[in-house]
Amino acid sequence: MNKIIDLRSDTVTKPSKAMRKAMYEAEVGDDVYKEDPTANELERYAAELLGKEAALFVPSGVMGNQICLNVLTQPGDEVICEKDAHIFHYESGSPAALSGIQLNLVEGKRGIFTPEQVEPLIRPTSAYYMARTKVIEIENTHNRAGGTINPIENIEAISKLAKRYNLFCHLDGARIWNASVETGITPAKYASYFDSVSCCLSKGLGAPIGSIIAGNKDFINEAYRVRKAWGGGMRQVGIIAAAGLYALKNNISRLTEDHEKAKLLAKFLNSFDSVSIDLDSVQTNILMFSPKKKSVEQILTECRENGLLLSQGAVGFIRAVTHMDVSFEDIEIAKKILEKVIG
Amino acid sequence: MNKIIDLRSDTVTKPSKAMRKAMYEAEVGDDVYKEDPTANELERYAAELLGKEAALFVPSGVMGNQICLNVLTQPGDEVICEKDAHIFHYESGSPAALSGIQLNLVEGKRGIFTPEQVEPLIRPTSAYYMARTKVIEIENTHNRAGGTINPIENIEAISKLAKRYNLFCHLDGARIWNASVETGITPAKYASYFDSVSCCLSKGLGAPIGSIIAGNKDFINEAYRVRKAWGGGMRQVGIIAAAGLYALKNNISRLTEDHEKAKLLAKFLNSFDSVSIDLDSVQTNILMFSPKKKSVEQILTECRENGLLLSQGAVGFIRAVTHMDVSFEDIEIAKKILEKVIG
Amino acid sequence: MNKIIDLRSDTVTKPSKAMRKAMYEAEVGDDVYKEDPTANELERYAAELLGKEAALFVPSGVMGNQICLNVLTQPGDEVICEKDAHIFHYESGSPAALSGIQLNLVEGKRGIFTPEQVEPLIRPTSAYYMARTKVIEIENTHNRAGGTINPIENIEAISKLAKRYNLFCHLDGARIWNASVETGITPAKYASYFDSVSCCLSKGLGAPIGSIIAGNKDFINEAYRVRKAWGGGMRQVGIIAAAGLYALKNNISRLTEDHEKAKLLAKFLNSFDSVSIDLDSVQTNILMFSPKKKSVEQILTECRENGLLLSQGAVGFIRAVTHMDVSFEDIEIAKKILEKVIG
Amino acid sequence: MNKIIDLRSDTVTKPSKAMRKAMYEAEVGDDVYKEDPTANELERYAAELLGKEAALFVPSGVMGNQICLNVLTQPGDEVICEKDAHIFHYESGSPAALSGIQLNLVEGKRGIFTPEQVEPLIRPTSAYYMARTKVIEIENTHNRAGGTINPIENIEAISKLAKRYNLFCHLDGARIWNASVETGITPAKYASYFDSVSCCLSKGLGAPIGSIIAGNKDFINEAYRVRKAWGGGMRQVGIIAAAGLYALKNNISRLTEDHEKAKLLAKFLNSFDSVSIDLDSVQTNILMFSPKKKSVEQILTECRENGLLLSQGAVGFIRAVTHMDVSFEDIEIAKKILEKVIG
Repeated sequence: MNKIIDLRSDTVTKPSKAMRKAMYEAEVGDDVYKEDPTANELERYAAELLGKEAALFVPSGVMGNQICLNVLTQPGDEVICEKDAHIFHYESGSPAALSGIQLNLVEGKRGIFTPEQVEPLIRPTSAYYMARTKVIEIENTHNRAGGTINPIENIEAISKLAKRYNLFCHLDGARIWNASVETGITPAKYASYFDSVSCCLSKGLGAPIGSIIAGNKDFINEAYRVRKAWGGGMRQVGIIAAAGLYALKNNISRLTEDHEKAKLLAKFLNSFDSVSIDLDSVQTNILMFSPKKKSVEQILTECRENGLLLSQGAVGFIRAVTHMDVSFEDIEIAKKILEKVIG
Repeated sequence: MNKIIDLRSDTVTKPSKAMRKAMYEAEVGDDVYKEDPTANELERYAAELLGKEAALFVPSGVMGNQICLNVLTQPGDEVICEKDAHIFHYESGSPAALSGIQLNLVEGKRGIFTPEQVEPLIRPTSAYYMARTKVIEIENTHNRAGGTINPIENIEAISKLAKRYNLFCHLDGARIWNASVETGITPAKYASYFDSVSCCLSKGLGAPIGSIIAGNKDFINEAYRVRKAWGGGMRQVGIIAAAGLYALKNNISRLTEDHEKAKLLAKFLNSFDSVSIDLDSVQTNILMFSPKKKSVEQILTECRENGLLLSQGAVGFIRAVTHMDVSFEDIEIAKKILEKVIG
Repeated sequence: MNKIIDLRSDTVTKPSKAMRKAMYEAEVGDDVYKEDPTANELERYAAELLGKEAALFVPSGVMGNQICLNVLTQPGDEVICEKDAHIFHYESGSPAALSGIQLNLVEGKRGIFTPEQVEPLIRPTSAYYMARTKVIEIENTHNRAGGTINPIENIEAISKLAKRYNLFCHLDGARIWNASVETGITPAKYASYFDSVSCCLSKGLGAPIGSIIAGNKDFINEAYRVRKAWGGGMRQVGIIAAAGLYALKNNISRLTEDHEKAKLLAKFLNSFDSVSIDLDSVQTNILMFSPKKKSVEQILTECRENGLLLSQGAVGFIRAVTHMDVSFEDIEIAKKILEKVIG
Repeated sequence: MNKIIDLRSDTVTKPSKAMRKAMYEAEVGDDVYKEDPTANELERYAAELLGKEAALFVPSGVMGNQICLNVLTQPGDEVICEKDAHIFHYESGSPAALSGIQLNLVEGKRGIFTPEQVEPLIRPTSAYYMARTKVIEIENTHNRAGGTINPIENIEAISKLAKRYNLFCHLDGARIWNASVETGITPAKYASYFDSVSCCLSKGLGAPIGSIIAGNKDFINEAYRVRKAWGGGMRQVGIIAAAGLYALKNNISRLTEDHEKAKLLAKFLNSFDSVSIDLDSVQTNILMFSPKKKSVEQILTECRENGLLLSQGAVGFIRAVTHMDVSFEDIEIAKKILEKVIG
């Protein structure tokens, strides 16, 4: 049987041989006592990379985002986020269930909202019968909008607005590395506008497990407590921290290749009348397209039967995500399969 | 000093002499033991009026809505409601804080959304990483949209959609009485499309305190437990239940007068170029208008200085609410004050 | 049929004629806007009586205690209380459900624990994997222990301990009035050792509805927000606030009579071999006794058949509570019924 | 410098060479899609070993216990557990914070309570103002009581009681393997009395990360959802699952050695007048002793200075835990250090 080309998500990447070796050789200790040297080094390195005082390794992106929101808020608080935000759609309703917080949704354009849109949503502090606005959340790159990059000027303006209203800013930077390699803006520069940051090691970077959150020391001390309370405190975590460290040191710059692959595929798809695709939104490693003749489900099935895995995006959309385990050759094969299915 | 005309809300109505007499003479007992005859009679009467198996008296509309949502859901569930819903804006973020539930917002037209808008928002049951859609909530009449009435055919269609997807429906019927007198559709008919209903006694009906929730027996048994857990179980509650009973028996049909007053005022406002008002949305006792020349704050202040109290609606809007403590003569005075301020 | 003598609880007291008159004549306004003059006066008067900066009227004792705990804590905090505390047994598990807090139980003697017992329970602040100790709660008088009074020296010592560990103290003073009239120590003196206080108007004081919480201004501002969020914000609340004000002004000193009645009944019961009673614990208006020959259920039933209502205390115990609606003559009748049943 | 002998906990064990090799070679996939073959095999194997329909890998013992409690309960429910239970002391107050549940504590003897003690704590279902009793939790072996084993007859009797009252039973079996090798009773036999089971791979079994929960299929389906919601869903989890699988297949039977070591050490300590130790409680790999002459802190410090790490147990107690990374020779050295410090 032919190789299956898996474009469902960049989370399907598997650890490379070198990464496995790093795990095999990792020095470990009990991280619950803060004695795992590899985890400690990962956290130190990640904090530096993100320009923050401290960082914490967590088992998943969901836990990363949710711990950050939990530390920044109290029950009854409100978080402003984009209407297609990952924390709204793909995190199980946990802002409400884990932290008692309400989401106030802004309709962005390609996932990007402006300070002008946010300002009227901020609740007056005198309105004791309303939720208390506490955090503005930005997802960069924006998954459901197709991997779009939030312009740094817009981020800066939102950050200023937040300060003016005494609000916190949280960055869901699951794929901040993709934004960074594409724009040349460092992760630390992006992070500088936020009180808390969450970034994934197990998506495009290819580590098997884990995310990093970062912020100031007080923030991370509280996050450390919450991580334990939610069952995210693990023991000889150096095994997987070694993979994360390897990923941060070796796999960031190569993301540009994934972006090229996505753009190649997007242009190809754009040549068909039977699909609709917004080329301007294909900025990193994700592309969304919407079929006109066949149903989403039908195309997913037919592609799968031909060895190409895609996933469902927002209603009516198909999502393809490029990553390190899919080569340029694979993209060519994918094109052929797509041509057969949608042509 | 002249009488102040208070159009901020219909919650400012004060108990009439007859209603006070009913309270004075009320037979009471300990309602926590279910031994208060007046509270029991109110609950029996309200259940009948709403065509439900059982009803429960609660201290406020907020508690009414929130208990209903709590009983119908579990933490991590999602409730679909209109983007201007009272439960989203004016209930302190309590869906999240009290019940761990997430709100999924639909942008209605004049507060009214269609089944076609709702259907794509329902989460697939297989999507274990998403909140679980559990309830569709409708607010009728819709406060923030200006007291608009949801057409019964639309309610029916949404109710059918809900059943198809195995979802519950909750009616925030704080002002269901206003919808009912305006359309001639009985409260019981409205309530028949919903699993749970919450209705206020202390708004247009003029009772000093309290709301009613209704549903089937199992629902009310659970609600009874939750009311106690949240501190809404009171003792000789017959005192205030007597006012609620009086209100239900005497003050519903007269609401048509309040609607007339609101329409008079709306037409008057519509004659000025300096304000913008959507006459079609003035269907019951609330009207919203948006000033073009002066700021909202300025108009509120100037009106107040002239003896007319109005309130802030959605951002950019002023709200006026008519009620039993404001006569047709008062409306004429209000017009004069408004003319002076906005003319 | 003969009058039924109801000793189940002092919550069964009904408003007197004078109290009803006060309600009938009460000046009211919309308390959600803080415009109800009677509620405002009640809160001012109660704050003064309790020697605190501010007070807030709430619909029930449960809401009073739970709001106080909510304001003093965050989810994951721990409250130390007596193993028979009302907040542990009779408040629906709401410390956990409403505020995410854990109770750490101390076994008191007659409901009273010492600083020496508390100190080892305080979690080290470095123990990030433990709940955070935040509040010590004292119930005075102690309901389930039989209305016992916590000695002021003991309260003072616990208060000092709390300060040393940077903990808050909460007083469940549902029946603080009973402690006060019995010891001559003012409610304000008792309250002075606590950051927050909750006191009932609807038990021995005879008001139909409501409780008071008190603390400093910041505390009450937050409590005001929480009351609204939980649905405890009511409208023309002056109607029932008038009863509370009447109760505070007229019904405190007469509680000594209720204590006399309880002691009379206790001594009488103590003369029977068929029951066991700890006379030293009968200090106010509650008495607990434990039958030796018949079951608790049997005695409750037989008493009820003879016109005397008693209730179940802790497992194996029967509880009798004296109050203003039971006269000394009624106590004599109660004795005769008890003699018949247990003699 | 000499080797440090670390008896603080069996969580400090590091993966052996063979275990590291298993991780290095592990076949992996995206576990969030249920496509990780090693994780799937671990879950299948563990379910079989525990005699349950299904099992789920989770990042920690805390998450294991808390997910089980969450699935079995609703907010406002009550869980009965021993007063020294791990879920009460060492899980951050998460029963309340994550699930809104209250703990009702029983004082066991050596951590073991009887059905007779539990029965009076079960709340009457009619008591709508009380928390709802929902689960009885047993910890076996019992950590804070010193690794004691709950007799199977006692477990059976509690299980029967639970069924009679329609309650669930949860086993905190973090160290169920230790109980099993000591008594010869299989893990499946132990698990058969419980609706949900949580067992650690990263304590005595030597895996670096992770725990297993098991139950019937519906239970595990719900648990799977909750794991994701709390951020415990990880990606190529086969890396660490491989270690867990290795641990279950190779490291259970050797636990008897750890028990021998603990007993050797206990007997040795018992020969000193300066410490108090309950030999009958030393049943597995944990021992608690209480110093008479020096303080706990002093002994911990002096031992550490001599190369022996111990930890703090309950107030006044020192805890030593034996495990695979401490040999019989190490125990002899430990004895010498202890003799020097406490002799």
